[in-house]
Amino acid sequence: MSTKLRVTVWGENVHEKKDPVVAKIYPNGMHGCIAAALGTDAQLTVRTATLDQPEHGLTKEVLDNTDVLTWWGHAAHGKVEDAIVDRVQERVLQGMGLIVLHSGHYSKIFKRLLGTTCSLTWREAGEKERIWVCNPGHPIAQGIDKYFEIDQEEMYGEPFAIANPDEVVFISWFQGGEVFRSGCTFKRGNGKIFYFRPGHEVYPTYHHPTVQRVILNAVHWARPEGSRWIDSAPNVPADKAPEKIVARGPALHKPGEAGFH
Amino acid sequence: MSTKLRVTVWGENVHEKKDPVVAKIYPNGMHGCIAAALGTDAQLTVRTATLDQPEHGLTKEVLDNTDVLTWWGHAAHGKVEDAIVDRVQERVLQGMGLIVLHSGHYSKIFKRLLGTTCSLTWREAGEKERIWVCNPGHPIAQGIDKYFEIDQEEMYGEPFAIANPDEVVFISWFQGGEVFRSGCTFKRGNGKIFYFRPGHEVYPTYHHPTVQRVILNAVHWARPEGSRWIDSAPNVPADKAPEKIVARGPALHKPGEAGFH
Amino acid sequence: MSTKLRVTVWGENVHEKKDPVVAKIYPNGMHGCIAAALGTDAQLTVRTATLDQPEHGLTKEVLDNTDVLTWWGHAAHGKVEDAIVDRVQERVLQGMGLIVLHSGHYSKIFKRLLGTTCSLTWREAGEKERIWVCNPGHPIAQGIDKYFEIDQEEMYGEPFAIANPDEVVFISWFQGGEVFRSGCTFKRGNGKIFYFRPGHEVYPTYHHPTVQRVILNAVHWARPEGSRWIDSAPNVPADKAPEKIVARGPALHKPGEAGFH
Amino acid sequence: MSTKLRVTVWGENVHEKKDPVVAKIYPNGMHGCIAAALGTDAQLTVRTATLDQPEHGLTKEVLDNTDVLTWWGHAAHGKVEDAIVDRVQERVLQGMGLIVLHSGHYSKIFKRLLGTTCSLTWREAGEKERIWVCNPGHPIAQGIDKYFEIDQEEMYGEPFAIANPDEVVFISWFQGGEVFRSGCTFKRGNGKIFYFRPGHEVYPTYHHPTVQRVILNAVHWARPEGSRWIDSAPNVPADKAPEKIVARGPALHKPGEAGFH
Repeated sequence: MSTKLRVTVWGENVHEKKDPVVAKIYPNGMHGCIAAALGTDAQLTVRTATLDQPEHGLTKEVLDNTDVLTWWGHAAHGKVEDAIVDRVQERVLQGMGLIVLHSGHYSKIFKRLLGTTCSLTWREAGEKERIWVCNPGHPIAQGIDKYFEIDQEEMYGEPFAIANPDEVVFISWFQGGEVFRSGCTFKRGNGKIFYFRPGHEVYPTYHHPTVQRVILNAVHWARPEGSRWIDSAPNVPADKAPEKIVARGPALHKPGEAGFH
Repeated sequence: MSTKLRVTVWGENVHEKKDPVVAKIYPNGMHGCIAAALGTDAQLTVRTATLDQPEHGLTKEVLDNTDVLTWWGHAAHGKVEDAIVDRVQERVLQGMGLIVLHSGHYSKIFKRLLGTTCSLTWREAGEKERIWVCNPGHPIAQGIDKYFEIDQEEMYGEPFAIANPDEVVFISWFQGGEVFRSGCTFKRGNGKIFYFRPGHEVYPTYHHPTVQRVILNAVHWARPEGSRWIDSAPNVPADKAPEKIVARGPALHKPGEAGFH
Repeated sequence: MSTKLRVTVWGENVHEKKDPVVAKIYPNGMHGCIAAALGTDAQLTVRTATLDQPEHGLTKEVLDNTDVLTWWGHAAHGKVEDAIVDRVQERVLQGMGLIVLHSGHYSKIFKRLLGTTCSLTWREAGEKERIWVCNPGHPIAQGIDKYFEIDQEEMYGEPFAIANPDEVVFISWFQGGEVFRSGCTFKRGNGKIFYFRPGHEVYPTYHHPTVQRVILNAVHWARPEGSRWIDSAPNVPADKAPEKIVARGPALHKPGEAGFH
Repeated sequence: MSTKLRVTVWGENVHEKKDPVVAKIYPNGMHGCIAAALGTDAQLTVRTATLDQPEHGLTKEVLDNTDVLTWWGHAAHGKVEDAIVDRVQERVLQGMGLIVLHSGHYSKIFKRLLGTTCSLTWREAGEKERIWVCNPGHPIAQGIDKYFEIDQEEMYGEPFAIANPDEVVFISWFQGGEVFRSGCTFKRGNGKIFYFRPGHEVYPTYHHPTVQRVILNAVHWARPEGSRWIDSAPNVPADKAPEKIVARGPALHKPGEAGFH
């Protein structure tokens, strides 16, 4: 690991180019806005990557040099190539942090790591969202008051069809009457995963200082802490067993032969 | 749910036909042996399904009428069609129990539900395995002493690259010096999942009465308990919000339009 | 286990006797109201127990014959004797279900099983509470729509200082703007624990049919499933080890001597 | 938090003074041996505290200035005053790390945080223990090979009656045939807790370089990461609610009155 934490901000970058409302709010893309906010922290080196780049900007070299990846996608989840999803998953299992934002709940990588559909209910009415802190001492909640508000947001409501999270850090209250587990932590392999709800593209959510603070906190929280263990299902032949044993009985594999994968 | 618990025993059924050692131990297939053991319980209706059948024997009709599915595969994980894996996953999320046996740790369905590689170390030396009960009061451990032994088994050793289990019910001690989390519970959606380690095909493991007892206990433990919730990401239009709100600001979707998936 | 599920409804029974508002709503005590609701299920045998009875009505004989215990207390948590709390904890670890209601979050037994302070924020303003189902397929949520409302309730708000729950089944939305994890599951030993938020004594909450339904569902969900394992830290002398070993080196204990507790 | 991580090594210090075998192995006490090993890390400031000191050496001032506490006790768990256990628990919930060693499984503080009996089986025969790494990428397992061995140790065997751990980092294989979850992580409040099995006082276990390495890794892993949140069950009066509401209906408490604890 370098001395600085290396962050890659991934953005789908579709609506920013097609939809004038979105383009006006995010002239440098949503990824550009998020990267700029993270870039104010001198402990981080931040780069961006987008769907339209070769390998979606997530080459092996880029991911090998990424400590934490943030992910925003919405309209084009299906266009993300499976081979790239494989590569991201492998790095998460090795310990790379992953911050999944808003509509990224339906991204291939999030569904693959959780094993569930990740569905929810929704409404696009520009209503008020109040996000409550469930654990004020949690690293991701530092510098935030008891709650913060976003004046206009899309509503996401329960049931949120996720695998049970390790911890619920935020829960949202919506003006229209719904609630949602808006900040959830998970671990897969050695990768720390944080899902954070806000961020509908037609509102200036990623310009909101508290939203930026949460993402920054989450990036630090999700930093890799151990080594990059590459698991490989190694065969341990009988003569290399920790205790002395003599192989006996029938066998499917010849000594030293690889197993089925 | 019918009054009887409906169990489908899935078997890859490859080595039973190719390898004379396996064929001799399991003349009716490993699935046949497991199904016969479960069939002695009058509370169950048991059927089998195998890879070589149309749709691998797991048609929509079969799965719709399955409360608990057991899964054994080894050499041909890659031949299981993704569409069938999708179907099994959907039923697990709806509440169907899933018992994954031995080399099924590398099956597509287990890896998909867990989100990890599920790798481990292994040795085929016909050594002794002693399986310890970590929680004698657990339903899956009923009728079993402090431990039970299998005279000859393949060794599976840690690290076992799984998502953290909800509970570890069994841990194995191997003569050659390794250990393994041999009985682990998970939940995805409303489906209860149990991984149970023993069952290498060249040994008569599924004839072992205690192994049969564990699988029977697990089938009962994994029975569906709630309803089959079909999640669907419904839109809740502003005029149907629980609290009266007026939509305001820009929007990406027209009222009533479906979201992106 | 008898063929019927044996439920004991424990009530503090203090405000019902002191406060005319409470007495009017619950002339037979809150425990009486809850017990009557559960009593309509022919699969249950229901009895009540209260603080003012000898041993708070929770004698060894009563607890030995209780499959699921429900607990409501508020003003007199400190008057519950530690010896009785020990006894309840022991039975939970053995597999007795425990349903903790409303202000029972501060009961000795709940705090002891969770290891945390279980604090929260609160407001007594008779405001509307809307309780959302986070997992419609969960056994505790059966027969309930997407949400249900209680016209007047006390507000409990996050942060709720609990150990991370296994699953969050319900989340509340309050008219005053707060949210709360209102239905949480835990497991300690073999005992299933469910915390359910509603039930402030000055409102007729336990007369609400959906609240009654949730408690009934939870009682069924929390039923004991395995055996009553009594853990005892047994010594296994060297000559009784599963593998033949010869004791060597210094020792603190003489052979067969009990360990420190 | 100071720039250095402040560690307090707590030792019961009973057998070191009474038993000549123990005194010879640990002339400065077991706590002295552990503190010396941790003291080689320039990132730590290490002090010790023992049962026989006033307030067991754990005054409010000491705990307020402790980031991570390690705990070894065996013969005198009952002599630890409840008021000191309260104080340690409060600091753990605030985020202080806690490393519980060997027979500390029966300490008041560990049982209180877990809510279970923490019992196990045991044998004092000086047998070989082989400790396997379940997750080689975990921070606590860094610098350790696939396994390490301790030539002579007390056996601890399953069932280990703990609340389900967040992660199992180590599992032990014993020469006499047992297994044990030897390295387990938990979280209560914001405190990270690690239980580590080895360390029977009649063997030189805490002189073992790999055992020292694990404790050092665990101390770094358990460092506080967020703020010291003091939860306090605050009342939020109706006129301070985030949404405008008017209190209605009966009430138990007068406006602004404290709740029951």
